[in-house]
Amino acid sequence: MIRVKSIHHIGIAVKDLQESLHFWRDVIGLPLTMTERVLSHQVEVAFLTSGESNIELLTPLEGNFPMRNFITLKGGGLDHLCLEVDNLEETIHELKQNGIDLIDETPKVLPGRKIAFVHPSSADGVLLEFYEIT
Amino acid sequence: MIRVKSIHHIGIAVKDLQESLHFWRDVIGLPLTMTERVLSHQVEVAFLTSGESNIELLTPLEGNFPMRNFITLKGGGLDHLCLEVDNLEETIHELKQNGIDLIDETPKVLPGRKIAFVHPSSADGVLLEFYEIT
Repeated sequence: MIRVKSIHHIGIAVKDLQESLHFWRDVIGLPLTMTERVLSHQVEVAFLTSGESNIELLTPLEGNFPMRNFITLKGGGLDHLCLEVDNLEETIHELKQNGIDLIDETPKVLPGRKIAFVHPSSADGVLLEFYEIT
Repeated sequence: MIRVKSIHHIGIAVKDLQESLHFWRDVIGLPLTMTERVLSHQVEVAFLTSGESNIELLTPLEGNFPMRNFITLKGGGLDHLCLEVDNLEETIHELKQNGIDLIDETPKVLPGRKIAFVHPSSADGVLLEFYEIT
């Protein structure tokens, strides 16, 4: 059995980080905790905290055509859901045993965390990320 | 300034609640806490808890053509984000003062809570719900 600790964050694709921060930080009042350029995923991100969870605003860098197209078409929107687990390798093993279709069959290692994505076809159309703090 | 207490839930539109519960409850291991038919919004919902937040699976009832079309087209997916606040009237007042486009200009009263939706055009394409426990 997978043990989920929390909803770590919900990812929102946005056109312009500064404009979006005006809404989520200045109007809604969520504190900004971190910004980062994640080159492996061709995005620039901003994390705002809300209780034990976070909202991650993502804007595409130059080469990220899928997210650019999504934003051009829809003006942005909900992108992915991320659940925090204690042990990502065990989680991936459990998912495979249950026949779940994975984008990442092994963890991607990033500064401070390991992550793996489930394919939306196995998760009600949701791009689902699992996240282990390292 | 609006004070958000937590991400109350993230709503996911699904084709079949029982099939979806197999994934989110039985494979992912999130405990099911409540099911409800919300006739005012023409949905049947299931709440699963994850730390201080929840995942709300929604399936459309007979007359809910927009959600039915979304599921037919996309197979389901992320539907809305819900933030919990202490005072919904104050929140709506603040949003209006900031020129935010609202779907509900006054709270909708439901058993145990009051809710109001912000229009996606004012929230980076996100259907954003505010929720006060009553």
